[in-house]
Amino acid sequence: MQNFFFLFLFLAFGQSQAQTQLPPIKPLQNLTSVRSYREANEHAMLREFRNFLALPNVVGDSLNIVQNADFVVEMMKKRGIENVQLLRGTKPDAPPAVFGEVKTKGATKTIILYAHYDGQPVNPLEWSRDGKPFAPVLRSGALDKGGEIIRFPDEKSAMRINPEYRIYARSASDDKGGVVAILNAYEALRKSGIQPSVNLKFFFEGEEEAGSPNLGDILERNKAVLQSDGWIICDGPVHQSGRKQVVCGVRGDVNMEITVFGPKRPLHSGHYGNWVPNPAQKLVLLLASMKDSSGRVLVEGFYDDVVPFTDEESAAIRAIPHPDEQMKRELGVAKPDGAGALLLEMLNLPSLNLNGIRAANVGAMAANVIPTQAVAALDLRLVLGNDWQRQSEKIKRHIQKQGYYVIDREPSDEERLQHANIAKVRTFPGYNAQRTPLSHPLAKAVIAAVQTTISEPLVVVPSLGGSLPLYLFEKHLKSTTVTVPIANHDNNQHAENENLRLQNLWNGLETFAAIMMMRY
Amino acid sequence: MQNFFFLFLFLAFGQSQAQTQLPPIKPLQNLTSVRSYREANEHAMLREFRNFLALPNVVGDSLNIVQNADFVVEMMKKRGIENVQLLRGTKPDAPPAVFGEVKTKGATKTIILYAHYDGQPVNPLEWSRDGKPFAPVLRSGALDKGGEIIRFPDEKSAMRINPEYRIYARSASDDKGGVVAILNAYEALRKSGIQPSVNLKFFFEGEEEAGSPNLGDILERNKAVLQSDGWIICDGPVHQSGRKQVVCGVRGDVNMEITVFGPKRPLHSGHYGNWVPNPAQKLVLLLASMKDSSGRVLVEGFYDDVVPFTDEESAAIRAIPHPDEQMKRELGVAKPDGAGALLLEMLNLPSLNLNGIRAANVGAMAANVIPTQAVAALDLRLVLGNDWQRQSEKIKRHIQKQGYYVIDREPSDEERLQHANIAKVRTFPGYNAQRTPLSHPLAKAVIAAVQTTISEPLVVVPSLGGSLPLYLFEKHLKSTTVTVPIANHDNNQHAENENLRLQNLWNGLETFAAIMMMRY
Repeated sequence: MQNFFFLFLFLAFGQSQAQTQLPPIKPLQNLTSVRSYREANEHAMLREFRNFLALPNVVGDSLNIVQNADFVVEMMKKRGIENVQLLRGTKPDAPPAVFGEVKTKGATKTIILYAHYDGQPVNPLEWSRDGKPFAPVLRSGALDKGGEIIRFPDEKSAMRINPEYRIYARSASDDKGGVVAILNAYEALRKSGIQPSVNLKFFFEGEEEAGSPNLGDILERNKAVLQSDGWIICDGPVHQSGRKQVVCGVRGDVNMEITVFGPKRPLHSGHYGNWVPNPAQKLVLLLASMKDSSGRVLVEGFYDDVVPFTDEESAAIRAIPHPDEQMKRELGVAKPDGAGALLLEMLNLPSLNLNGIRAANVGAMAANVIPTQAVAALDLRLVLGNDWQRQSEKIKRHIQKQGYYVIDREPSDEERLQHANIAKVRTFPGYNAQRTPLSHPLAKAVIAAVQTTISEPLVVVPSLGGSLPLYLFEKHLKSTTVTVPIANHDNNQHAENENLRLQNLWNGLETFAAIMMMRY
Repeated sequence: MQNFFFLFLFLAFGQSQAQTQLPPIKPLQNLTSVRSYREANEHAMLREFRNFLALPNVVGDSLNIVQNADFVVEMMKKRGIENVQLLRGTKPDAPPAVFGEVKTKGATKTIILYAHYDGQPVNPLEWSRDGKPFAPVLRSGALDKGGEIIRFPDEKSAMRINPEYRIYARSASDDKGGVVAILNAYEALRKSGIQPSVNLKFFFEGEEEAGSPNLGDILERNKAVLQSDGWIICDGPVHQSGRKQVVCGVRGDVNMEITVFGPKRPLHSGHYGNWVPNPAQKLVLLLASMKDSSGRVLVEGFYDDVVPFTDEESAAIRAIPHPDEQMKRELGVAKPDGAGALLLEMLNLPSLNLNGIRAANVGAMAANVIPTQAVAALDLRLVLGNDWQRQSEKIKRHIQKQGYYVIDREPSDEERLQHANIAKVRTFPGYNAQRTPLSHPLAKAVIAAVQTTISEPLVVVPSLGGSLPLYLFEKHLKSTTVTVPIANHDNNQHAENENLRLQNLWNGLETFAAIMMMRY
């Protein structure tokens, strides 16, 4: 109830000041109705969310992806959304986007609300014993703070659900929570008899976590139905301070995989160790050449091409509260990378991150061997000015400069005998960064709308550390995007034990209800 | 039949020369009988071996280890071996050694024949789809040379089994093959009515691959029954040239595990990458500091303490054929470590080998995360003069010198905030190298005996690259050891798709029959 109380205080006492800075806001009454509707229906919302999360949704698992799309179709139809359909590109087997729309009488503008229903790959062995990726569990709080498993509440009970509870499952926060927040925001307005201020379209993607390889194609082939005055993207976390944020840009991203080769068959480390080169040790030397101990990337030209922030963006960045000390404590980090730079500064530089590394085994399965190969998974985040292909080529050239023969497949026997160092380097489809000017009318309208739902100042971020393929909307539809995240910042997004705090879902519902009523 | 033909030629025409160098040999007739017995019984031998290999035998899997020990007990009883019993140390749950003995009328000397029935850890996912670690398959040849699965032969058939066939399973070569060769050698002598020249004892260990943590204790508590005039160890591969070898020493070994810590929970690489230090990158830098690109270990004092070879040993080493060019071709190695040194030279230096490395995931399960930790498994091979504790301490000190706070457990929250670099370093129980002088009567007797089974010169190795806890026999029993390997060199020992070529098993049987008849 705390937010609500502050909202009341703000609206009661802060209104004249707010009016000088922000466009007029929708009456408090509408948000109150939205909240009441949610409170009365939160058991049903949680049940639906849980069922949604129980559907495995890793791209490549085609059968399950289709079931997810069907589930979203049903959610939309149940809510009276019209023209519900699956949108596809030229590849019939790629995960479809789910589309629907709602016309608003007298509205002149149309916005499209975006979230994605697919999730990051999972390694079930890494999850806590009691909650597997697609067997959602409810916990009394964060697992790493001792949150314990709670039975899902009895729906017949009139008891409110503790909003500090968290639901643990793959995609709880990234990004099925987004789908659920958007659709329930619409549901709450509709059931409360509140008309949106704009025409609404809904677009739920099914392969965002695979780098959206078919999104451009889907947009291109469905241009007509996707006409709009802007996209609102629901993905990512709110600010670490817990405050809501509106995000006007994202970094780009490209994934690479490096495989270094050792002997053709695994060898006994005693009989050959010291003489047959160890591919894990080679990979270690190669990766060590890419980054120094302060985290600075040593690859030639890595920091070139960066487009600096505008004055407007720089001013916004100065206004953002710095979570650095909080995050150091929370994550157990004594000394961040970046030689003293702030988190926010570092997130606005290109990065090279080692997502994973593997050769043979460690722990109970470790054996005294020279492995046959060693593999590293990298992701390169890109800022405005970087091109994903150019950036990944810099890595390739760096590997060549370290004396490697670089190929994109397994080496032949002849190649193994010709080249002392062979690396298979794969670059997966990536995309560039994108930024919408803070002064764009869509940005201004969204910022104003979300600000109505909270009393403290909204955090406005020119560019997020994370990535979304937002450049595609510009490229194919000449359209603008603004991102409005809802997840708690400590949601283990992309990793094991991903979770969403229920209060964040409820807050997100109000955020999107406000956006649907925005003055645009 | 080829070997046999050469043996005949050698004995027919080379005898006078041989007699000046070697003690008199047992009549050829005895080895002929041994071979005939094997040929008549190879189907039954293969069946028994297959059943033995089907028993999982990784140390720690206590129930299965006991079943293996029981299986060996039965094998021995079936062969009329006396006083068969399980020997234990003070820990009742540790894998027992299986003991038995055979008295020879009139013999003045006693030898103990050693092999181990446990195997290295397995990762079934790494094995070829058709042959899991404990589901033995027969192949027409080496898997990596296109060997295909063959049905196990019909025992009723009078057809000989193609000796180029290989049996694939964990421990086929390391070291259940050793148990089977020794026991069938005895069986062949007994059934052929040939009396051994010495009293025989049999000792089959059950935790060699775990570093023999209880072997010293077992030897100490069973001193009386283990009195002998020397141990013959059956483990390891024959020379890469295919020639039989007798080995008078082994390297020592100690395993270590290094864990480097990142954030307390896994993080989205976009939202924190560049600022929260990545433990995989830290580990990469740390490991890169330990070894240069030529494979030379950079850890201070790593090559100290090495006791040089005696003149006798140096002469023996000069006589060993160098398999370097063959192995480069066979393994696909363009440039070995060691800056031009020979394999045999490098195997006589201490080594540091990266057995495995792991952080988060690669391949289909890779996700855009900063992992919470990164782990490396190392093994250090030791030569005469190295002490396993001193050697592992050098690694620890090196890690500290790189700015690490080194502990042997998970760090506390306070420690994470105090230390930028934290490494958990575990050192597992290890052991030192061991060498028996080539001029020791036991070594001379074994060399002479094994030489009787082949026409080409035996390879005599002062010290093997691999490790066995042979120093324990010296320490607890003041006893001497000589090692006689039988496995093919390309047996994938310790790794996936371990295998034994049947001809090597049959050759091993004759080798041990000759040893049981040796002039000592």
